[in-house]
Amino acid sequence: MAAKMKAIIARKDQPLSWEDVDLPEPAAGHIRIKVAAAGLNRADILQRRGMYPPPEGAVDIMGLEVSGWVDAVGEGVSGLREGQAVCALLPSGGYAEYAIAHAGSVMPPPDGVDLVQSAGLPETVMTVWANVFGLGQLKPGETFLVQGGSSGIGTTAIQMARAHGARVFATAGSEEKCKACVSLGAEAAFNYKTDDFEAELKALGGVDVILDIVAGDYVSGHINILKTDGRLVHIAVQGGLKTEVNILKIMSKRLVVTGSTLRGRTDAQKAAIASQVVSSVWPQVRAGKVKPIIDSTFPMQEAEAAQARMVASEHIGKILLTLD
Amino acid sequence: MAAKMKAIIARKDQPLSWEDVDLPEPAAGHIRIKVAAAGLNRADILQRRGMYPPPEGAVDIMGLEVSGWVDAVGEGVSGLREGQAVCALLPSGGYAEYAIAHAGSVMPPPDGVDLVQSAGLPETVMTVWANVFGLGQLKPGETFLVQGGSSGIGTTAIQMARAHGARVFATAGSEEKCKACVSLGAEAAFNYKTDDFEAELKALGGVDVILDIVAGDYVSGHINILKTDGRLVHIAVQGGLKTEVNILKIMSKRLVVTGSTLRGRTDAQKAAIASQVVSSVWPQVRAGKVKPIIDSTFPMQEAEAAQARMVASEHIGKILLTLD
Repeated sequence: MAAKMKAIIARKDQPLSWEDVDLPEPAAGHIRIKVAAAGLNRADILQRRGMYPPPEGAVDIMGLEVSGWVDAVGEGVSGLREGQAVCALLPSGGYAEYAIAHAGSVMPPPDGVDLVQSAGLPETVMTVWANVFGLGQLKPGETFLVQGGSSGIGTTAIQMARAHGARVFATAGSEEKCKACVSLGAEAAFNYKTDDFEAELKALGGVDVILDIVAGDYVSGHINILKTDGRLVHIAVQGGLKTEVNILKIMSKRLVVTGSTLRGRTDAQKAAIASQVVSSVWPQVRAGKVKPIIDSTFPMQEAEAAQARMVASEHIGKILLTLD
Repeated sequence: MAAKMKAIIARKDQPLSWEDVDLPEPAAGHIRIKVAAAGLNRADILQRRGMYPPPEGAVDIMGLEVSGWVDAVGEGVSGLREGQAVCALLPSGGYAEYAIAHAGSVMPPPDGVDLVQSAGLPETVMTVWANVFGLGQLKPGETFLVQGGSSGIGTTAIQMARAHGARVFATAGSEEKCKACVSLGAEAAFNYKTDDFEAELKALGGVDVILDIVAGDYVSGHINILKTDGRLVHIAVQGGLKTEVNILKIMSKRLVVTGSTLRGRTDAQKAAIASQVVSSVWPQVRAGKVKPIIDSTFPMQEAEAAQARMVASEHIGKILLTLD
């Protein structure tokens, strides 16, 4: 009989449940992690609704990032030994007692961050690195806007852009969230429910790079806000995926409109990002310039309540699921 | 009384006329060129219709490129002397006996190209360089599509991309034009009036970089054609400037949607492009890998007929206006 573990199972129109499933075995190049904590991401909610299926070969359990201890090592993996504390980006499967990660997506938790909190770092830090500094090419002295500045991605992006020497602006959905953005290093934060952030940012001279999670109706305003040679980087389409774009404005200002998902990248590409994060971002975490901002932790068995908090957008920073 | 010269003057709803105007004086950093020939560009037609005004400070005469001889040198210009043969990109003013160019936009005609023909090089070569290799980052071995392959830009882009080691595809509006594209180095050319180039190129595995002059309804097809990490570079919007874009597709394939105009760049940026063209493209011209493709030459006084040929899209390559 196959060994078992507990995991959160999502069924259509049912509450999440904590059930026995087969213990997964690490294939070549992979490791199994005994999970200490898992980070929540909006993509989990999309996956639950059938709108963001896990890549081929990955398990149909939610969860894109975990921290924990190496539990078993697949063939051909070097530099990782059983019992070692790690955090990791996953294609899926984090809401479980054990999870499989590609060895290249496994990182040591940064010094000074406890193991549970480090579960909230891989997805946000790798996303910001690949999109703001990779595709977006944000440079010191440039001006940066992040939409949804109080989210896990947002709180990370504000801190990483500041640590990089950029001027940072953010939007968020309440005064309290805007204050949180400013306390993390944003020069100003705009309440997107009440402020005309497009007019405010144009009056401030525009921005060089935008990290956006909305798309939809926001795109044309973003094109207006961007300075010459500006870059608009999308990582989600919460406001709708289709939108009208004025190509002449893109030409006139030589804008770059782009975007990416982490999940769509190859294991080799993820490994390259993880390696850059360890060498370039972990020192900033160690120096206290980039901190994991944890909104709340829930026992993993209460994933339903944790997701409800995210869907209600009540959180500032990351929501984590923990296991004893 | 100010010295005079002849120039082509455009008045609303009137035929072009060859009239006396003031001889322009070169400001600091500029030179005056005695024009041997001027290249036609579609932007001239737009400028004539009031849809593409010349930048502030530039003369309201059509013409973005000329060849000829240095006639007068403004303050602070070094390395250019009276009588020297040159070709140059202009902000405007090429349809005239004399034209003013910023010294940084002046290039020696490449060896082996006669002075008249070199009038057709600056706009096309600098546009292709800045967009296909600059913004588009086309690499050897990658696959490239140029829309309007038989135009001045198109015939130049096909040759420059081939000389760079890329696989090249093109579209054009007739069988004859498609044949011309293939004879210049395109692996295949599609008649956009009769062929489903989107389906054909998808069947061929897609392309890495597209140089587009259409925009409008072409954008969503281009997004479908592009491979992962593909780049879509716009240099004109002949099919309409506004279009619906699917941001999720851009994210899924990590596409870059961008574009530029030469006219919108600073003099310093144009100087940098001209300098790169002289060092990187002129050797390919000298080696016969990139040839000026001249459709026809008209005496400058017959600019009306020359523009009519361009508007009717009867040409393959550049149309030039010559002066005795």
